[in-house]
Amino acid sequence: MSEKLANNVEKVSIQENHSDKPYQGKDEDDFVDPWNVVSKSDTGVDYDKLIVRFGSSKIDDELLARFEKVTGKPVHHLLRRGFFFSHRDMHSILTRYEQGKPFYLYTGRGPSSSSMHVGHLIPFTLCKWLQDIFNCPLVIQMTDDEKTLWKDLSVEEAYKMALENAKDIIACGFDINKTFIFSDFTYIGQRAEFYRNMIRIQKCVTFNQVKGIFGFDDSTVIGKIAFPAVQATPCLSTSFPDIFGTQKIPCLIPCAIDQDPYFRMSRDVCPRIGFDKPALLHSKFFPALQGAQTKMSASEANSTIYVNDTPKQLKNKINKHAFSGGQVTVEEHRKIGGNCDVDIAYQYLRFFLEDDKKLEEIRKNYTSGELLTGELKKILIDILTPILQGHQDNRAKITDETLQTFMTPRKLCI
Amino acid sequence: MSEKLANNVEKVSIQENHSDKPYQGKDEDDFVDPWNVVSKSDTGVDYDKLIVRFGSSKIDDELLARFEKVTGKPVHHLLRRGFFFSHRDMHSILTRYEQGKPFYLYTGRGPSSSSMHVGHLIPFTLCKWLQDIFNCPLVIQMTDDEKTLWKDLSVEEAYKMALENAKDIIACGFDINKTFIFSDFTYIGQRAEFYRNMIRIQKCVTFNQVKGIFGFDDSTVIGKIAFPAVQATPCLSTSFPDIFGTQKIPCLIPCAIDQDPYFRMSRDVCPRIGFDKPALLHSKFFPALQGAQTKMSASEANSTIYVNDTPKQLKNKINKHAFSGGQVTVEEHRKIGGNCDVDIAYQYLRFFLEDDKKLEEIRKNYTSGELLTGELKKILIDILTPILQGHQDNRAKITDETLQTFMTPRKLCI
Repeated sequence: MSEKLANNVEKVSIQENHSDKPYQGKDEDDFVDPWNVVSKSDTGVDYDKLIVRFGSSKIDDELLARFEKVTGKPVHHLLRRGFFFSHRDMHSILTRYEQGKPFYLYTGRGPSSSSMHVGHLIPFTLCKWLQDIFNCPLVIQMTDDEKTLWKDLSVEEAYKMALENAKDIIACGFDINKTFIFSDFTYIGQRAEFYRNMIRIQKCVTFNQVKGIFGFDDSTVIGKIAFPAVQATPCLSTSFPDIFGTQKIPCLIPCAIDQDPYFRMSRDVCPRIGFDKPALLHSKFFPALQGAQTKMSASEANSTIYVNDTPKQLKNKINKHAFSGGQVTVEEHRKIGGNCDVDIAYQYLRFFLEDDKKLEEIRKNYTSGELLTGELKKILIDILTPILQGHQDNRAKITDETLQTFMTPRKLCI
Repeated sequence: MSEKLANNVEKVSIQENHSDKPYQGKDEDDFVDPWNVVSKSDTGVDYDKLIVRFGSSKIDDELLARFEKVTGKPVHHLLRRGFFFSHRDMHSILTRYEQGKPFYLYTGRGPSSSSMHVGHLIPFTLCKWLQDIFNCPLVIQMTDDEKTLWKDLSVEEAYKMALENAKDIIACGFDINKTFIFSDFTYIGQRAEFYRNMIRIQKCVTFNQVKGIFGFDDSTVIGKIAFPAVQATPCLSTSFPDIFGTQKIPCLIPCAIDQDPYFRMSRDVCPRIGFDKPALLHSKFFPALQGAQTKMSASEANSTIYVNDTPKQLKNKINKHAFSGGQVTVEEHRKIGGNCDVDIAYQYLRFFLEDDKKLEEIRKNYTSGELLTGELKKILIDILTPILQGHQDNRAKITDETLQTFMTPRKLCI
């Protein structure tokens, strides 16, 4: 049959677009796609604009109130403080929870050669909290195949990184009885259901679509072109027969907003092949030490605090590299005060200092000029040091056997 | 990392091109690609032109003589009569055989809902002969994923067809101890090495290349775009760890010439990722009953003799549909004689009548007008009837257990 005649697959209309260039959050100031986050503004990306451009919904007070009502628990400070700022269909998930209907959590990570950085802890921290309050299964995809395709890395190198990174993830405290972590390079060769679902998805998405969504062009390698389906496949519960059997159950995906294009594509495809659309909780980016114009990146050591940094490294990095919103001289600072909106030490405290009262006090004192930049940085160092130490202690205790259990396809205990 | 910056994979230069539109054998008369074979000439495709356009080598007397010398056996009539007419690197395979170095055979089939047709028997017949004389492993890929992507077929339907078609293939007499038959929908979920090799290949091929090779365009679904790598993956012996462990061994692929684009792509990629180029033996197309302008197609019942046709169906189809090179009246036929070059019954005899002397006698008598069309057709019917019957008997004896053994990844006994 001719290629053209055979291509009788109904075209997907990307119905969730609400603007001209919807998938790349690109305007005069910001550029956001799965590989790039750059903002010209020193307070970072304009997230309200991103919600409009991506066509998602704001996490508003009403949703947070419902969250607390339905779960009977106060919402996590990452939600309360707006780091998770956008969602898709979170109300449906809460309704399912009220009705006692099942759902699962899905998140992922593109492995990197270095240790995870503190920014990576954010989605996993929320993920663990969601797993605890909803008591539901969690699948975590390590996209070692993606890394091989996008970077100068062999299959073996990327796979090894996936295993190392999985230990960092386990160290976040996930429940071994409710969590399945998998590397694409292993799991796709373990359960036929995954590849079958990949093909179901790949049959529904044209090159035109991934071109529009991910900026691919004719010189893009075919592995990259097909990859979005690999990241979409865990949205189909039947990809995990050990956990869900043949049941079709929707998932909730906590992720950084830059991953949304993958899941917007997934949301277009899922209903066409008999599955619910995945629901999403979007986080903002964790800013680089040098400032909120770019997100923290594991491949740039100077702008990054790794979870395995020593106390001395941590101290040096914050003191040396954390962009300050303070003034040049003490006198000036006392007079004019600091700018919390651009001060990285303050911004990091918003992630890691749970106590609202203390945080507000710090904000007031720094803004007034009473608190100096060095003092503010010391507060952050004192809070982050035990967090990193705790993570490192957790990680040191993870045996290969534990890792293997997390990564074995198996029935989870819910 | 940006898509463009990250795309630092060295570009493949398709070095084996020797003409402007090399991958599609397309000129004023013929069109040949993996989905279409159409010729305007009533003697069918001009295969000499195709060799030039595809840049392969002719199977000449020298190669056939070396074949006989190296194997110590007369070459198969499908080689001797030029149905396998073109090759790539067959000399290297013969050299390996002389040196006692290992290689394997790889062929495949896109499953169809109907039974196989007699044209399908041709490559498998040669494959079985090659397996017997070389005593080497054979892997047979059932591309059920391809069928799901190209046709209006579900995963389950295509997979079921793969199992049914596998029985037809086994009925050709393959040695259960030396043959592994696999469905993509199953095997890719059984051995991680296959998917890992798929990604290695997909990292080396750009959309531009598959566009040029297979005629894809921007509206092609991403599954089709990625699929050529799936068909290339069995060229890497490490995709079959049960058979080859981690050994890198070259393969020989007997296939119809329309599949060459896949393997020309494979031959470009293999050396870049540390593997030998696959060698190839190309067959001509098996002509449709209506004439050599198109190849026999399992989806067009009237132009096709299925291996499970009854003697009555076979007889009717040949008598009713086989294009005749004879004259309109007996008188005229006796006077002018028949044209064997376009007569389908005679052409089929060249495939199925092994006896050169008898065949030559038939040719002379039909050309002279002594032999009438009805008589010629009867000879073909008398030869094909027991061949089909034998195949049907073989197939009836294949148990599900036998099928399962053929399709289980396992060490082969060579």
